Amino acid sequence: MKFEAIYHRTSDNLCYPINEYDLIINLKTGFDIKKVFIHYGDPFATGILGGEWKWEGKREEIAYKKRLKHQLWWTTTLKPEFKRCRYYFELVGEKETWFYFEDGFLNEKQMHMDGRMLQCFTFPWMNSADINKTPDWVNDMVWYQIFPERFCNGDPSINPEGVKPWHKGEVTNKEYYGGDLQGIVDKLDYLEGLGITGLYLTPIFEAVSTHKYDTTDYMKIDPNFGDEEVFRKLVNTAHEKGIKIMLDGVFNHCGPKFWPWIDVIEKGPESKYLNWFMVNKWPFENNNRDTKDGRFYSFAFSEKMPKLNTNNPEVIDYLISVCEYWVKNFDIDGLRLDVANEISHNFCKTLRKKMKAIKSDFYILGEIWHDSISWLRGDEFDAVMNYPLTSGIADFWIDDSLTKEDFEYTINRCYTMYMQQNNDVLFNLLDSHDTERLISRVKDINIFYQQLAVLFTMPGSPCIYYGTEIVLEGKHDPDCRRCMPWDEIEDGKYDEKISIMKQLIKLRKEQKLFKSRNFHFPNTIREDRVIEYIKIDEYGNNKLEILLNCSDNNILIDEGGEILFSNRYSDNKLFKYGVLIRKTI
Amino acid sequence: MKFEAIYHRTSDNLCYPINEYDLIINLKTGFDIKKVFIHYGDPFATGILGGEWKWEGKREEIAYKKRLKHQLWWTTTLKPEFKRCRYYFELVGEKETWFYFEDGFLNEKQMHMDGRMLQCFTFPWMNSADINKTPDWVNDMVWYQIFPERFCNGDPSINPEGVKPWHKGEVTNKEYYGGDLQGIVDKLDYLEGLGITGLYLTPIFEAVSTHKYDTTDYMKIDPNFGDEEVFRKLVNTAHEKGIKIMLDGVFNHCGPKFWPWIDVIEKGPESKYLNWFMVNKWPFENNNRDTKDGRFYSFAFSEKMPKLNTNNPEVIDYLISVCEYWVKNFDIDGLRLDVANEISHNFCKTLRKKMKAIKSDFYILGEIWHDSISWLRGDEFDAVMNYPLTSGIADFWIDDSLTKEDFEYTINRCYTMYMQQNNDVLFNLLDSHDTERLISRVKDINIFYQQLAVLFTMPGSPCIYYGTEIVLEGKHDPDCRRCMPWDEIEDGKYDEKISIMKQLIKLRKEQKLFKSRNFHFPNTIREDRVIEYIKIDEYGNNKLEILLNCSDNNILIDEGGEILFSNRYSDNKLFKYGVLIRKTI
Repeated sequence: MKFEAIYHRTSDNLCYPINEYDLIINLKTGFDIKKVFIHYGDPFATGILGGEWKWEGKREEIAYKKRLKHQLWWTTTLKPEFKRCRYYFELVGEKETWFYFEDGFLNEKQMHMDGRMLQCFTFPWMNSADINKTPDWVNDMVWYQIFPERFCNGDPSINPEGVKPWHKGEVTNKEYYGGDLQGIVDKLDYLEGLGITGLYLTPIFEAVSTHKYDTTDYMKIDPNFGDEEVFRKLVNTAHEKGIKIMLDGVFNHCGPKFWPWIDVIEKGPESKYLNWFMVNKWPFENNNRDTKDGRFYSFAFSEKMPKLNTNNPEVIDYLISVCEYWVKNFDIDGLRLDVANEISHNFCKTLRKKMKAIKSDFYILGEIWHDSISWLRGDEFDAVMNYPLTSGIADFWIDDSLTKEDFEYTINRCYTMYMQQNNDVLFNLLDSHDTERLISRVKDINIFYQQLAVLFTMPGSPCIYYGTEIVLEGKHDPDCRRCMPWDEIEDGKYDEKISIMKQLIKLRKEQKLFKSRNFHFPNTIREDRVIEYIKIDEYGNNKLEILLNCSDNNILIDEGGEILFSNRYSDNKLFKYGVLIRKTI
Repeated sequence: MKFEAIYHRTSDNLCYPINEYDLIINLKTGFDIKKVFIHYGDPFATGILGGEWKWEGKREEIAYKKRLKHQLWWTTTLKPEFKRCRYYFELVGEKETWFYFEDGFLNEKQMHMDGRMLQCFTFPWMNSADINKTPDWVNDMVWYQIFPERFCNGDPSINPEGVKPWHKGEVTNKEYYGGDLQGIVDKLDYLEGLGITGLYLTPIFEAVSTHKYDTTDYMKIDPNFGDEEVFRKLVNTAHEKGIKIMLDGVFNHCGPKFWPWIDVIEKGPESKYLNWFMVNKWPFENNNRDTKDGRFYSFAFSEKMPKLNTNNPEVIDYLISVCEYWVKNFDIDGLRLDVANEISHNFCKTLRKKMKAIKSDFYILGEIWHDSISWLRGDEFDAVMNYPLTSGIADFWIDDSLTKEDFEYTINRCYTMYMQQNNDVLFNLLDSHDTERLISRVKDINIFYQQLAVLFTMPGSPCIYYGTEIVLEGKHDPDCRRCMPWDEIEDGKYDEKISIMKQLIKLRKEQKLFKSRNFHFPNTIREDRVIEYIKIDEYGNNKLEILLNCSDNNILIDEGGEILFSNRYSDNKLFKYGVLIRKTI
């Protein structure tokens, strides 16, 4: 038996309650394990009791498993009778059976050895206060990310100084084009028409730059974007259309003109805001140099983005009062935290408590690009931006040595990292203001649609970046922040593209299986690079098949089912880079 | 390469800061890995930046490793220049080298593939507020656990009704012998003489039973134990002698006479304390039946120990006010939480914040018998009762198929489960009021001393159960709660035994290496069941060798070194069940 491949710990995504009654248990093993049974019972009726082994528990086979690249992922749900659960595993290999306890592997003889202190795994009590709860509505969302400066200019009277004419093509971060909140209000009908149900706006508070990630005033709408009145109109009109609003909170750092930072610059160590920041050396000069000299800590060594000290309770209180203000007065529905991974956990925990107390289904989303388990234990964020999914998908089309099994492993990895409650509300995206645009990353427009088909059939909550519906181009920042070509859109130039996006959004909303978390990879097609996955409801009454031909060959597909979406498919042939989504029951 | 054996996650005991400058990184691999290098650097100078791979990081070999049963445990400490760290591993096998990233294993070609989104591991910022801090003083402790009802009767005027004469031999949980707090005060000189520096008292608040784990009044000393005056005298006198005091808080459940429970029993669903408990069915009767009918939840199905609902903020507030009372008014130093694993995490987190605010070096210890990582992330407990160590040690002498390597694996497992900060203050014990006494578990008195030698040379904070110094016998509860035979002690009957204990305690306190966390198992002696481990200081100037002969043969030991402690050793011969501790530099 490959003992070294076996892993379980009563913690995190490996053992957790989804409510007060159901306990999910996951176990990793090598591919040599043929069957797994779980033995479980109440800790006070089962295990070593008064020095003697007594077992009043149950034994159940774990029937369901997923394949990871090097391991199997076994998963089951238990219903402990009294909210307590003691358990161990019985692992059946090709030739041998071992019992897996917390402290290792025992054979039958060792298990029943007099006086041996068996260390069972234990989930001691399913306390309601500790259950990881995420907002129900998020799984129903189709998000649309807007970079306001470049989305639509609805009020030229508040144009920034030196505004440039709205234009098509490349942009930099220095040019202002006058996009604003009235522009978003003006396009709400368009967005509603697309089928969008949630808007994620990159920052709108007063700030220095075009991207507004360098806040000047957290309590004020940027004057070039509008004022509180137009923001209230935006939220209310969106809400009337059933569209949620998520703002972007930049709390890791501020901009160069944030008043406490100005105070520090002016008064030096005497400033009462000194500990709001992370200053290491006095005096220091700011003269367009990065902060690699360590004079103070900043975001990405930018001297114009000094880090806020979210270890300081005063800063925590201040920033939370900011959040409370925007929720209480404007009823926003969610907050995306910029550079969420560098902010103190202490801040994140306090923020969650305070926000959920005001609005219990408020959505807290962290911008974290890497493994985020430390923030997704139920007491910090509801979800993170699912960049591991982004790169997992992207890499498959970049590295053509990868096979459909590699794709399966990647998807399974992404959905076994966190608890189910978080998986259901992960913020799934293929691109953003921080990446190349999807169309500029792929070598063929049909791959663009293949990746979108994946995005729309994954569990979580998909988001498209503004312009994706018209296949807008853009290389890395700043080029991914181009102006939205409304004149061309109104001229009907993109009608066909928009209609494809509408179709995908409609399917996501109408076909429950699109968002379902139950999927598997049957691998019935022999081509190495033809992806096939099946989504099925819990009663087996409905079945969705997603096929992506990423090989260089055209492939023949069995007839049958109701085609919901296709590209480069006809007469049972799925051509190179084609996609087919059909209902097969 | 055994990919399936390789495990790392940027979380918990695998990656954590020990202060604002030092980041510990641990990695598990199979035994096939010959060398490991870590590549690390700042996330804003290193990795995928603007779509291109750029690496300004360092490459360092991970030199230090421990052996687990099926894996190697590689460990290193990094000093990220700007508190941020991005990293990946280079794994050198016998014939091949792979790079281990967060999303899997890449070869050289894949790493440098254009557009590939490399997912490095990332520890994003070492925030001071999030660093797991534990009280410094605990590592210096030699604890002594007292079960007050059976330790010493110092004030017969408060004897319980029907008190029995102090006696030698077996006891039950129903008999009262009149042990009290004055009795402990009277024996402080004795305890000081032993060398004890901390007392852990099982519960002393007013309660029904002899063990007092069924609290009646959390704000009152049990009248059979004394009053606030004698408790204050106990704490003050102990403190004068440099002895810390830890109480036992029973917050998972109360006793049958706790006033809110009485109110619930009397008023039923109308009681305003209804939600302080977990009642499922009305009406219900209490008539000496267990609670397996689920009428209300209780500790271990005992109807006399109804569970407190620590999910309810009112209960949390009440219990924390209890803790605050005893710390503020009596200056106690630590609190052991009974059945800590069933209490809500929410309670534990709030408790920690409040207690550390009053007394920053207050010690919070959880009674948890299983893997406790979920409570040891720095925001709940400082430590747990180290029962995995207890059973790891015990099992070695129970199961003689286990070899010295198994012992090594067990010890290494116990000290790789948690962060170093917690390991340093783990509450190590060989027995307690909840287990057989050590002498009644081993088949030979010399094994008793072998296990004590292990206890006193392990990192953490050792505790002996009252009477261990005189080798007091006792089978499982209730027999492990016998009366301390003071007359015999005073007659000198146990002088020799007490002197051995004094010697071990003195060594623990005087020889820094006894508590050091740096140890290894050289395995130079060929006997399967001769344990040998070496403890060494960071400069290599001092070296401690611990030898335990658990084989059936007498073994020859090389000469040399300064013998600090021995049993069954003479003329370079270590006899069966002998122990030798010596300084070899």
